[in-house]
Amino acid sequence: MTKNLLATISNPSDLRKLSSEQLPQLAKELRAFIIDIVATKEGHLGASLGVVELTIALHYLFDTPNDLLVWDVGHQAYGHKILTGRKDVFHTNRQQHGVSGFPKRNESEFDAFGVGHSSTSISAALGMAIASNLKGETEKHHIAVIGDASIASGMAFEALNHAGVSNANLLIILNDNAIGIDPSVGALKEYLTKVKTDKTLAKNNIIRALNFDYSGPIDGHNIDKLSAELQRLKRKKGPKFLHIVTTKGKGLQKAEEDQVRYHSPGKFDKVSGEIFPKSEENQPAKYQDVFGDTLVELAAKNKNIVAITPAMLTGSSLNVMMQTFPDRTFDVGIAEQHAVTLAAGLATQKMIPFCVIYSTFLQRAYDQVIHDVALQKLPVIFCIDRAGLVGRDGATHHGVFDIAYLNCIPNLIICAPRNEVELRNILYTAQLGLVQPIAIRYPRGKGSIIDWKQPFSSIEIGTGTCLQEGSEIAVLSIGSISNNITKAIEITGQSACIGHYDMRFVKPLDEHLLHTIFKKFEMVITVEDGTVKGGFGTTVLAFASTHHYKNTIKVLGVPDQFVEHGDTLELQQEIGLDPLSLSKEFIKHLS
Amino acid sequence: MTKNLLATISNPSDLRKLSSEQLPQLAKELRAFIIDIVATKEGHLGASLGVVELTIALHYLFDTPNDLLVWDVGHQAYGHKILTGRKDVFHTNRQQHGVSGFPKRNESEFDAFGVGHSSTSISAALGMAIASNLKGETEKHHIAVIGDASIASGMAFEALNHAGVSNANLLIILNDNAIGIDPSVGALKEYLTKVKTDKTLAKNNIIRALNFDYSGPIDGHNIDKLSAELQRLKRKKGPKFLHIVTTKGKGLQKAEEDQVRYHSPGKFDKVSGEIFPKSEENQPAKYQDVFGDTLVELAAKNKNIVAITPAMLTGSSLNVMMQTFPDRTFDVGIAEQHAVTLAAGLATQKMIPFCVIYSTFLQRAYDQVIHDVALQKLPVIFCIDRAGLVGRDGATHHGVFDIAYLNCIPNLIICAPRNEVELRNILYTAQLGLVQPIAIRYPRGKGSIIDWKQPFSSIEIGTGTCLQEGSEIAVLSIGSISNNITKAIEITGQSACIGHYDMRFVKPLDEHLLHTIFKKFEMVITVEDGTVKGGFGTTVLAFASTHHYKNTIKVLGVPDQFVEHGDTLELQQEIGLDPLSLSKEFIKHLS
Repeated sequence: MTKNLLATISNPSDLRKLSSEQLPQLAKELRAFIIDIVATKEGHLGASLGVVELTIALHYLFDTPNDLLVWDVGHQAYGHKILTGRKDVFHTNRQQHGVSGFPKRNESEFDAFGVGHSSTSISAALGMAIASNLKGETEKHHIAVIGDASIASGMAFEALNHAGVSNANLLIILNDNAIGIDPSVGALKEYLTKVKTDKTLAKNNIIRALNFDYSGPIDGHNIDKLSAELQRLKRKKGPKFLHIVTTKGKGLQKAEEDQVRYHSPGKFDKVSGEIFPKSEENQPAKYQDVFGDTLVELAAKNKNIVAITPAMLTGSSLNVMMQTFPDRTFDVGIAEQHAVTLAAGLATQKMIPFCVIYSTFLQRAYDQVIHDVALQKLPVIFCIDRAGLVGRDGATHHGVFDIAYLNCIPNLIICAPRNEVELRNILYTAQLGLVQPIAIRYPRGKGSIIDWKQPFSSIEIGTGTCLQEGSEIAVLSIGSISNNITKAIEITGQSACIGHYDMRFVKPLDEHLLHTIFKKFEMVITVEDGTVKGGFGTTVLAFASTHHYKNTIKVLGVPDQFVEHGDTLELQQEIGLDPLSLSKEFIKHLS
Repeated sequence: MTKNLLATISNPSDLRKLSSEQLPQLAKELRAFIIDIVATKEGHLGASLGVVELTIALHYLFDTPNDLLVWDVGHQAYGHKILTGRKDVFHTNRQQHGVSGFPKRNESEFDAFGVGHSSTSISAALGMAIASNLKGETEKHHIAVIGDASIASGMAFEALNHAGVSNANLLIILNDNAIGIDPSVGALKEYLTKVKTDKTLAKNNIIRALNFDYSGPIDGHNIDKLSAELQRLKRKKGPKFLHIVTTKGKGLQKAEEDQVRYHSPGKFDKVSGEIFPKSEENQPAKYQDVFGDTLVELAAKNKNIVAITPAMLTGSSLNVMMQTFPDRTFDVGIAEQHAVTLAAGLATQKMIPFCVIYSTFLQRAYDQVIHDVALQKLPVIFCIDRAGLVGRDGATHHGVFDIAYLNCIPNLIICAPRNEVELRNILYTAQLGLVQPIAIRYPRGKGSIIDWKQPFSSIEIGTGTCLQEGSEIAVLSIGSISNNITKAIEITGQSACIGHYDMRFVKPLDEHLLHTIFKKFEMVITVEDGTVKGGFGTTVLAFASTHHYKNTIKVLGVPDQFVEHGDTLELQQEIGLDPLSLSKEFIKHLS
């Protein structure tokens, strides 16, 4: 019986004691280890399986953590975590207080740079390499591992453009598997495909044009070839670029065959790869599905509707629209800036663009929202997915800043529907002929209504609604956190005392309703699943101040700190936004 | 005597009545017209002089405004404005209520897309072209004119990557003059230089690799060659790319020779080109010069200091640092996203990066500030230049959102020094060893102190200061708007009644000082030169609410609307932030 090699490895110094002949066996064991844990604990699967050989080769050949290794995005870094001191805690992956699903500086000295959003690795590693030059540490290596979807993003190009004229000791490894979360798109991707088949392009290609010492493409699953090439590159100074070809999901047949589904498959059988079905019966639909289906319904009737996503086709359920109206659906790749200004261009010609972006990624297109959309008052419809706490993806992915960063932008309507029916109705309303842009924010995951497919009715822009009358305190909320408030009010057992208002729009505020509330209730509590700094609550404070109300106002929301990963309910408990915490807060203010 | 052709042209339909032989004469006249007006009225000179022939050829050959023409950035669009109905009002360029210095949709139907920030043109024009395809308008042309500095920005690459695989009827014209505001940098720029000299690269280059029908490079001042090539391209469908070579400042010798200075030269002699000296004696220095000189002073003593600018070397006065410490100064081109994450990478290795960005352009790197810097608590020092109203550049360039969009980010210190000495001292303080990032915002232009070069003294983070005691109302301010308040208090003639506090830090707030203020004064007025939505004032409101103060608070700042162009004082008057308006506001609240 062969000795289990992985069992002997706590960190890369142990790995370096192996002979190179043992590495393929280690690769097999590492793959099995990843599959074992992800099969039961869930997480991102395909990306890490694809880079098992690369991960081993890098830590075997380079002197990590002294040599600095940056993984782009980080979905692929499970093998890295397991080999760098976190094998025994890896079963806590993505759980509250467990290891993060992404590399993270304060988790390990081997995580040279925290990641989560795409395309940052070249900039970060270049910064490190320049620092080493300035410090005279000329033997230090700086490595960025980036996928073909991520390298097509503008930020990565900016970094390549700089690195190519630097004398930095930087190695960029392009992990080319022709897929991000969905299949990669764009002219660069088509070109890279050509490079893989046309040998002449290895000698004369875009990467060489940008001044890099290009080598490849080589088979990223052949650990000997990989090691030989990495050895060679170690001896070269300056900016280098290694192009490797891998298969996402490598080693688990089903994951190789359905790479989109096995990006993050949920629980599955570790031998067959079969995904365990979730019991979906009598469960409310996901907001994403409500969005996707509704958009198709609307697009069927309104020919001017088009939809744009920056590489989140499946995640945002825009794949339904892509299947039904492929000519009117645009996956532009990881290109948030372009996505927003493309939408603006479409809007100038009277198309009705639905620009579908996760809240956390819209941060990448902030300037475009201000400068290209709002300033020109172009009626782009922003569908801001995964607003609020997103759960296990954690600090890099929570969509908690959007209310604050959008609220200061003139001309923009900001709406947060409280449930699926309201989401449908605001989507319907938005395409009826708005003369200004609108941001519609909704959360990740399941809603609260089974029978959400109701006939459309339009919502008057800037109007809130009273969900429940009350006598002592008024709770004002925005968006789906409303459900927690409903539960919290029940828990207090004093429903009659607590008024609940769904304000629906952060902007324009329903001032008429606010006057009614401020005249009736001395105590006003605002609740939102975004930052208290600059959020909905501060807008209510400003209203009160402007109109000289002296009511007592309590603002609840995400405090001024980064929230880590965990189950969404656990995170809500951490910051006091779960039903029980809210109920306690309400009771405090009841006489 | 030759008839003046320009006099006969009100709009492009008049232009199209000329014979092609007359176009060179028109070019001469248009150039003279631009020089004439800019010499006395000021504005951007070099860029528009460089594209006179292109501007004429485009409007002559294409059916504008039905064909859609998008100018990137827009500094080069003066000729376009003059030929499209704005000749007679062009002398009001950049003045309050006059024509904008940039193309603007609500100014003319010929301005297909409003611009100001760089690298948006391809995305916008592609959106228009896709709209035309969907509408079956297959004969419509869509043209983006973009410079070689702008095309190296990530957003432009994202758009190229998409356009290359589209069937859009899009013509991209690269106006290659090897300079933006400062000389262009980066690997792409070096490559384009090679393309201009190596004929084989016209057949096989990066642009072709991205699927474009590439033609060029051709002389952009040869109107016959330009016209012939544009005619040919008009008949081709799909994405096309024309590379033209021009000289910035063409036709005015001094502007050709010193392209950086003549980007926006101020008043000059229209015949000799000689720039009229400004009387600088006994004038306070510009904040930019204080910043630039101070940074060099600090860098001389602290070897870990490095500085980064995304293509604003001269504008931010970082050119002094570049001259003194070229190895520690990085102009990364128009690449805000990369600039910020590069700084983060440098900070991980204990360098002290000063990341110098205009407030309005930091919007381009918002995600990187959150995700790469603040989340990892890396001590990057953001020097946010041109914060507040910037004057004649207008709506696209005002730095009024930064307080709001930064305030919701955890871990970040936000400081706005009120004068040059305070700016020096906070720069000094920031490099002493902060353990978190800091944003330092300061305005465009002159400060208020002649003798600003005082010995350094450190500022305690999170402390404000009382500038003047008072008895009735407290005015709390942040940043250089403090000077207007000082003047306003004088104007009231009731200085003894008005307390003035410079809070200095938006975050952390000086809560100790605030408690003192809220206990002493019933009436509190906050003043800032940023948006009232989510700004400093709302932070004070939140403080009061948290601590149950019932004082009356009035929040003054930039209202929830885009502010147009004009002299800064005029704009302050528009929104009530000039000394006189402020004094009237103060008097209202005095008994």
